[in-house]
Amino acid sequence: MGSTDRIKNVARRVAKWHDAGHQVVVVPSAMSGETNRLIALAKEVQNPPDPRELDMIASTGEQVSVALLSMALQAIGKQAVSYAGWQVGIKTDSAFTKARIQSIDDARVRRDLDAGKVVVITGFQGVDENGHIATLGRGGSDTSAVAIAAALKADECLIYTDVDGVYTTDPRVVTEARRLKAITFEEMLELASLGSKVLQTRSVEFAGNYRVPTRVLSSLTDPMMDLAEEASSGTLISFEEDTNMEQAVISGIAFNRDEAKISVMGVADRPGVAYHILGPVAAANIEVDMIIQNQSVEGKTDFTFTVSRNDYNKALEALNTQKDEIGFATLIGDAKVSKISVVGVGMRSHVGVASDMFRTLAEEGINIMMISTSEIKISVLIDEKYMELAVRALHKAFELDKE
Amino acid sequence: MGSTDRIKNVARRVAKWHDAGHQVVVVPSAMSGETNRLIALAKEVQNPPDPRELDMIASTGEQVSVALLSMALQAIGKQAVSYAGWQVGIKTDSAFTKARIQSIDDARVRRDLDAGKVVVITGFQGVDENGHIATLGRGGSDTSAVAIAAALKADECLIYTDVDGVYTTDPRVVTEARRLKAITFEEMLELASLGSKVLQTRSVEFAGNYRVPTRVLSSLTDPMMDLAEEASSGTLISFEEDTNMEQAVISGIAFNRDEAKISVMGVADRPGVAYHILGPVAAANIEVDMIIQNQSVEGKTDFTFTVSRNDYNKALEALNTQKDEIGFATLIGDAKVSKISVVGVGMRSHVGVASDMFRTLAEEGINIMMISTSEIKISVLIDEKYMELAVRALHKAFELDKE
Repeated sequence: MGSTDRIKNVARRVAKWHDAGHQVVVVPSAMSGETNRLIALAKEVQNPPDPRELDMIASTGEQVSVALLSMALQAIGKQAVSYAGWQVGIKTDSAFTKARIQSIDDARVRRDLDAGKVVVITGFQGVDENGHIATLGRGGSDTSAVAIAAALKADECLIYTDVDGVYTTDPRVVTEARRLKAITFEEMLELASLGSKVLQTRSVEFAGNYRVPTRVLSSLTDPMMDLAEEASSGTLISFEEDTNMEQAVISGIAFNRDEAKISVMGVADRPGVAYHILGPVAAANIEVDMIIQNQSVEGKTDFTFTVSRNDYNKALEALNTQKDEIGFATLIGDAKVSKISVVGVGMRSHVGVASDMFRTLAEEGINIMMISTSEIKISVLIDEKYMELAVRALHKAFELDKE
Repeated sequence: MGSTDRIKNVARRVAKWHDAGHQVVVVPSAMSGETNRLIALAKEVQNPPDPRELDMIASTGEQVSVALLSMALQAIGKQAVSYAGWQVGIKTDSAFTKARIQSIDDARVRRDLDAGKVVVITGFQGVDENGHIATLGRGGSDTSAVAIAAALKADECLIYTDVDGVYTTDPRVVTEARRLKAITFEEMLELASLGSKVLQTRSVEFAGNYRVPTRVLSSLTDPMMDLAEEASSGTLISFEEDTNMEQAVISGIAFNRDEAKISVMGVADRPGVAYHILGPVAAANIEVDMIIQNQSVEGKTDFTFTVSRNDYNKALEALNTQKDEIGFATLIGDAKVSKISVVGVGMRSHVGVASDMFRTLAEEGINIMMISTSEIKISVLIDEKYMELAVRALHKAFELDKE
């Protein structure tokens, strides 16, 4: 939420839903810039700040915004009440600044809803078993909303964001990209973790685990837009594969431009080689994504993996300092590669998605450097310069531009 | 507390006390301007704001400052932990924005203190029996500090303010005014409510009721000043009349320049006359201070009372609109009067304070318009133009300039 004008608009939107007969719980974010302001204040005093104390400070941003929203609702004639997480039993573990929700006590909220009140609850935070405030980390408000919806067995959890839904791919790359009306949470998970940063991965996991129908829709529309229209806007993340799902084999194409590839050449093919190579990389706090180990030749093998481009030099350095321990011949790297993934639950029951993908890329003359697959996703690594071309070709080949 | 630099200074001062072997609980105020900022934000959304929601917002100012202070203490090597009121069982009634503390659960705080930690607790707030946050109103941090000191049976509650203690009278009026080393809480109560606005009346009441030795001292001194010197600075508000008290009959002279006097002339002297006159005044939300009713003559009497000068015209209007119901002849008013009070527990056992006071004023040619007395205070109303002269004469007559 931005200014107080923005809060008043949110109130009008919420009131519209309530007027239509829905029981409504709202989980607003902090006002824009507020969380950053609070963290900067903390760092002026102690750097790095103590996580437990930082959470005491950071959690106040949401506490202010829930009360403001409750007041804005009252100002337009709604009964409303705001709660901090601890007031409605949102229990978390004690991993301050990155806590996980463990349970929610819904009794008080149900009582207020049944009394006709709109209930406004702080996202991003809860309280651990010792009564300390713990925050969930950035984007935690979405996770809180899904968790509360799960606890209340809500019909739907609406996540208002600055995008109007999940697209078949990035519209800046493919102008024909189409908004998906629905998607399974598994697909959403793959698309989110692959770079379509609409929702925090954790909130999608939560929605999946607790089977909460979750809709991503735009907060930038007119708050008084037609309710039926709003209710079917955005993208519904569903846990039911069959219901209302579009029949496409592939739902979307994700990509990550900023990848880098490192090949460790001529290592002895013996047990523990992967550990000896990836150990130093992990120790340097670098996340590894795709991993391939070639068939060995004369007891020697090549080992290739990808990292985020930002970590490329750090990864090379980590390996070179351990050259003797690992026992490799040379390192070959390429920091100009991109990853493209086609995602869809439909591929479970359709053979041939992989071959369709590889043929499409081959027809465009694009060489595939690495391949990795999961049940509902196929990812390939290609030269960065072909990335847009590949995404457009695949988007067309899988007919994602068509309803 | 002002800037983060100010917070770091507070931390150094607190650490000094802890280093000297004291167990320390700190109740910092919000950062300066923060409470006003939050209230203004609330009023942008709803005016007047819902008290319960306003307290959700206003309480965050202290939550931020306790965590910042805890971090500042950690940054200089102290173990410290911050708590919001609800985390250490500070229970209040449900009078939002002006709640009263009912009980404090000291178990958690004691545990932390015994473990060697400095404990930092939000002032100004607690939680009611339904788990709603309630604030105590302006100045509530002082009251919280005293209440926590009472619950923990602290040796002393130190209130750091922007003055360096309680004076025999306002030094701007009498240059010889002297800081009192000690004062009883009853005297402090009279001095505070009479205009020496060092401490909130409510926190003084609390200190008295729970017999908490409370010291008012300056926050503007060097945080690293000698501890023994700091420990005996300021003014100790004691609940023990005899111990360490200065032997003076009179402790101080309070005054209130902005009084106004209204006389209701020629009312029938029958039961209920006071109610008929003061009813309309109270209904207009005007506080009445001194009240005198003259001996009646031929069944008629005059009734005189004082109000704050700001309320003078409103009070006259309230009476005039009820002229027939009250049945008075005329109203006589004077908006240029001041009240002067001499205060001291010593006057309980000393006769003649009143006559000393009246003689002193007579010698200066100052006419007394009204008199009111209590066990430890004598107040007179005089012409505003003689106020400074009267205060100086009384200060000298009662030898308040001498140790």
